[in-house]
Amino acid sequence: MNEFDRIATYFAPLAREPGAFGLRDDAALLSPPPGTSYILTKDCITEGVHFIGDEPANLLAQKLLRTNLSDLAAKGATPYGYLLGLMLPHATPDAWFAAFARGLAEDQERYGISLLGGDTTATQGRICLSLTAIGALTRPPLLRSGARVGDAVYVTGTLGDAALGLDVLQGKLPLPDTAFLIDRYRLPQPRCAIGPALFGIATAAMDISDGLLQDAGHLCRASHMGMVLRAEALPLSPTANAAMQQNPRLLQRVVAGGDDYELLFTAPKAETTVLASLAAQTQIAITCIGDVVAGDTPMLVDAHGAALDFPTPGYQHF
Amino acid sequence: MNEFDRIATYFAPLAREPGAFGLRDDAALLSPPPGTSYILTKDCITEGVHFIGDEPANLLAQKLLRTNLSDLAAKGATPYGYLLGLMLPHATPDAWFAAFARGLAEDQERYGISLLGGDTTATQGRICLSLTAIGALTRPPLLRSGARVGDAVYVTGTLGDAALGLDVLQGKLPLPDTAFLIDRYRLPQPRCAIGPALFGIATAAMDISDGLLQDAGHLCRASHMGMVLRAEALPLSPTANAAMQQNPRLLQRVVAGGDDYELLFTAPKAETTVLASLAAQTQIAITCIGDVVAGDTPMLVDAHGAALDFPTPGYQHF
Repeated sequence: MNEFDRIATYFAPLAREPGAFGLRDDAALLSPPPGTSYILTKDCITEGVHFIGDEPANLLAQKLLRTNLSDLAAKGATPYGYLLGLMLPHATPDAWFAAFARGLAEDQERYGISLLGGDTTATQGRICLSLTAIGALTRPPLLRSGARVGDAVYVTGTLGDAALGLDVLQGKLPLPDTAFLIDRYRLPQPRCAIGPALFGIATAAMDISDGLLQDAGHLCRASHMGMVLRAEALPLSPTANAAMQQNPRLLQRVVAGGDDYELLFTAPKAETTVLASLAAQTQIAITCIGDVVAGDTPMLVDAHGAALDFPTPGYQHF
Repeated sequence: MNEFDRIATYFAPLAREPGAFGLRDDAALLSPPPGTSYILTKDCITEGVHFIGDEPANLLAQKLLRTNLSDLAAKGATPYGYLLGLMLPHATPDAWFAAFARGLAEDQERYGISLLGGDTTATQGRICLSLTAIGALTRPPLLRSGARVGDAVYVTGTLGDAALGLDVLQGKLPLPDTAFLIDRYRLPQPRCAIGPALFGIATAAMDISDGLLQDAGHLCRASHMGMVLRAEALPLSPTANAAMQQNPRLLQRVVAGGDDYELLFTAPKAETTVLASLAAQTQIAITCIGDVVAGDTPMLVDAHGAALDFPTPGYQHF
């Protein structure tokens, strides 16, 4: 199949919004209902950096989409649509496109989002994938700025699983229950059910993609605040917890490994009960891991309140 | 400089819209004024496919932005903002980022557009660049569908220069005045002054990026129409014209070479005078190259009305 046959066969069926023009027009129309605004976000993932390259294409599609959905969730936005940029080696077979589109189709159902447009081009290098996600909002978005002294700091889900999953895939870490960790690395779980429920509760929010400490640093700078985060309070999966018991140095991976795609947010302590009931309702853990304090940077402390230092706070591409 | 220093140094100054949050929030807010809708388009360019790799980074930035602006112009949209996806080798130096941002800054002024957000990541392969452009509209967009029997077919500017420029760069074509052709390859001239002026005039429109015949085929299919295009009417630059006189087979490159970034549109013949005055006003040629007829495909004919056939109608990535 040539480029246009593939678009018609695999991707046009995913373009369910009328504004996508069935992908025939190389552009999409966004016609906002009154009172609606949009959040736009763009995350790229590349072979050998964000994924290893031997993953099934349906999982790559879902990782690409979900890393972006995580950004929408952090803003409190509801998924609406996305544009897709595929840069692929010339020899990419039809089966790859078919599997990629199948992964997208599943997640479109799961998250209520539609393909709007995009571009498929060849690359002479390795696979590069780019996605622009659009979320709808009827209120001002949650931002990284807004945290106040006295707020508590929360995270959703568990931290470090994905980083440990990558270590397992790279043969650096012999662990039992590797399937769980690998799944956490390959398939982020964007917290779309939590983000939009945080309006009126969270004072600042973001998603954790490059490591808790580095991302908390971004939130601190945007809010002109500091944080004290308690290592003992960090939510760990049973698997990550068992690994940490055996090798306490894995804490570095938990706080700075990246690929968590959990939400980090601040909220007044008075919201504790509301957050507990949100966690119960969504079946997604929401854990208080520390406090907002005066300052401009996050500090991780041990059970005795002593600061823990790490060589790097998170993943950096350059 | 690390990733975040580079964003703050080179890219944050380009984010002039309040909805870009100074690039601090990894997402942008689009708050539509009443009556405004948006066109979204996404084009990717990759090293070794859309550019050779030895181009100055400021020109790469401008090619990336302009290929997308060309799509906005084809819809009649006014440039508003863009999200940028840079996938770059680890060793990319600061100077590359500085030059890339300088190219963007110049074109932001030229076309009245602002950076809204994006992502910078490493790739283990060659350079891949992705951009999502957003244009504003207060009327329904120009589409590829809508051409009617009896309409004339028009193109802006001249065709084939960029394809010949690539041939020159690849050593395939010894030509005088190569600087002009190379410039046409490296620096598209999106017809932003023409597109929004075509409301109420054009019945269908698109931009030519992969070759006139292939792209005209897309317009024909979307409109359920055919076209008769006259080879003798195709607008050529003096340089391309001289090359064609020497080697008539270069017609293949003119009609199927790609990278023109000119507008192709159809309009009733009664609009001839209006279009002539638009061309005079913008100083951009608008040339009638044929007619819309019943059918489903474009046909290129010679001066005697005989059909001209080509091995491929345009550029295909796969």
